Amino acid sequence: MSDINVVLAELKRGVDEVLSEADLIEKLKENRPLKIKLGADPTAPDIHLGHTVVLNKLRQFQNFGHEVIFLIGDFTGMVGDPSGKNKTRPPLSREDVLRNAETYKQQIYKILDPQKTRIVFNSDWLGKLGTEGMIRLASNYTVARMLERDDFKKRFTEKQPIAIHEFIYPLLQGHDSVALEADVELGGTDQKFNLLVGRELQKSAGQKPQVAMTLPLLVGLDGEKKMSKSLGNYIGVTDAPNDMFGKIMSISDDLMWDWYDLLSFRPLTEIAQFKEEVKNGRNPRDVKILLAKEIIARFHSEADADTAEQEFINRFQKGAMPDEMPEFTFEGEIGLANLLKEAGLVASTSEANRMVQQDGVKIDGEKVEDAKTTISASTHVYQVGKRKFARVTVR
Amino acid sequence: MSDINVVLAELKRGVDEVLSEADLIEKLKENRPLKIKLGADPTAPDIHLGHTVVLNKLRQFQNFGHEVIFLIGDFTGMVGDPSGKNKTRPPLSREDVLRNAETYKQQIYKILDPQKTRIVFNSDWLGKLGTEGMIRLASNYTVARMLERDDFKKRFTEKQPIAIHEFIYPLLQGHDSVALEADVELGGTDQKFNLLVGRELQKSAGQKPQVAMTLPLLVGLDGEKKMSKSLGNYIGVTDAPNDMFGKIMSISDDLMWDWYDLLSFRPLTEIAQFKEEVKNGRNPRDVKILLAKEIIARFHSEADADTAEQEFINRFQKGAMPDEMPEFTFEGEIGLANLLKEAGLVASTSEANRMVQQDGVKIDGEKVEDAKTTISASTHVYQVGKRKFARVTVR
Repeated sequence: MSDINVVLAELKRGVDEVLSEADLIEKLKENRPLKIKLGADPTAPDIHLGHTVVLNKLRQFQNFGHEVIFLIGDFTGMVGDPSGKNKTRPPLSREDVLRNAETYKQQIYKILDPQKTRIVFNSDWLGKLGTEGMIRLASNYTVARMLERDDFKKRFTEKQPIAIHEFIYPLLQGHDSVALEADVELGGTDQKFNLLVGRELQKSAGQKPQVAMTLPLLVGLDGEKKMSKSLGNYIGVTDAPNDMFGKIMSISDDLMWDWYDLLSFRPLTEIAQFKEEVKNGRNPRDVKILLAKEIIARFHSEADADTAEQEFINRFQKGAMPDEMPEFTFEGEIGLANLLKEAGLVASTSEANRMVQQDGVKIDGEKVEDAKTTISASTHVYQVGKRKFARVTVR
Repeated sequence: MSDINVVLAELKRGVDEVLSEADLIEKLKENRPLKIKLGADPTAPDIHLGHTVVLNKLRQFQNFGHEVIFLIGDFTGMVGDPSGKNKTRPPLSREDVLRNAETYKQQIYKILDPQKTRIVFNSDWLGKLGTEGMIRLASNYTVARMLERDDFKKRFTEKQPIAIHEFIYPLLQGHDSVALEADVELGGTDQKFNLLVGRELQKSAGQKPQVAMTLPLLVGLDGEKKMSKSLGNYIGVTDAPNDMFGKIMSISDDLMWDWYDLLSFRPLTEIAQFKEEVKNGRNPRDVKILLAKEIIARFHSEADADTAEQEFINRFQKGAMPDEMPEFTFEGEIGLANLLKEAGLVASTSEANRMVQQDGVKIDGEKVEDAKTTISASTHVYQVGKRKFARVTVR
């Protein structure tokens, strides 16, 4: 029993909800490799730090001897946008799917143990459902219960259209759990409803229901929104060490503590100690450097982490970057000169152009060559001359 | 043009709504055999007069040279009740479906012209839709629009469960129209929503939308509810001539005029004249006899109609049955003796038993042999002795 309590405490670290804990304990007691499912979007194989929160949890399960089932939801990806309205989302071909799967592998195996990971494609069983299987599947859930899902409820209340096939997708995801006989399914907090549908469908199919485990969504570089590629507030796991270092150093101190909770493998006691030290006067920048190095070491190497730290210090000249600086957020793409003016770093766009020509403008410590640069969705530290800094988010 | 106006006036007779009339006129002008679709329930091949309202309209289309597509909705019948909760509705086998289709043919060809009728089964194309086809189909309609259907709206408002597959069925019915490229679809007024879904799906598929034509629901023998087998207030098209005659003679005078509108092929002018005559003193029973004979001649023969009339008159002894009589409705099965007592035809159940023994009790003019008879859902004229009559509905 005491072993299970230790395992349980580790598995629950950083987790938002476990539904239900009793089911998880029961499954752990069975003393067999559990099947831990994670569903992945087949269209977006670029993994960023936000995704790694849940990947880290999968790795933890593997460390305790369990099997990860990394499910690529290719079936609906190959259907594309059934309304045909969204031309930016063309149907994926079988080749696209396989290529994306390879890209996934290269990235997830930086965290997961390939020996304990099975990659599966739901087109293998969803295609076989057929017309009749779809009717039976849809008969398992009521309209009212589906409308309890937060986003559906909101859209329904606000009279935004919900196409009927959108009610089918959570059922297909739940059916994946039936087909795989999943023991546990992981997801972000926004996936809670869908994970519970899986539980229900497994019960209907006479299986023991999977445990739904939700993890908090990682906030992106801007300190406000969920990290996502489309918002530009992300760090990709294949980003170069210097980019990772610069981006992590650009986040606010508040956000840093969030990231420690969700991304660091350090014991909770050590993180608590860091907080105490900062409270007593330690420069938070030192603690941020430790986080940056831990993450770079994970996705590259210890040596890369050391080099990135050294280059960062060289670029910014020791002590030149202040601990506090003004922050700005602009909506939509903006030219560099305008951005510098709006952020109060220059008096006019012509001054901005002149400063660039004189090599006096830096973004995350790197000199800007072209004053005509357009800045799209991102968060960076902008520097004009030696003393003027601003952290600017464009979205 | 004038020809089309004549045809249009005939086609619109007795119709509740035509959506849209402009589309119908356009199609009639194309001067080709139109495809007129009617969907039939594969589980209930017993056709009663209620069904013939729409069959008569189909026959009219055939008389003008158009083709009737009699669609047997076997696909969902073979799925059965997908929730498995309704054990009284087991899935139909292929053999059941074919046997029911034969039964349909024997009945509908009493009205329809077999040369201009095509019988089709929607399992021929719905099975091929598959998982992907179902997703695409479901993407054509929104949850909010589906909830506009009266029965869904009512159940949703009253928090009665609506399973998601129930939203799929109208889409499948609509897809049938796409697969058949139907020009017109007929149905009862309760089918209006589903017929319009067909219009929408055809538009999405790039077809000219079908014309939705709804016909009023025929009220049953009880004068209150839609004619249906389960309510027992029906006349089957295979009922014996004497049964038909007795049942038609048992309906109220008000209901008779409804039936004239929906079931008689007599010109509207002639029916108007009957009404005028009754207003001026003609016995409505004579007009009811004409209706009974017209309907028996249609489903049996002129000779059968004459015989049934003669037997009816003999049974009731000329003039013995009053034009007006008290009417009663009882809920649930009831013993004959109790029924007679409750209807005031006898003073006690023991009097009822005695009267039966003395051959003094008749139902629709036929002597009752057994006083222990139980009366289930039905409408009949009960007679005790020579003078006491009551029209009683049990439901």
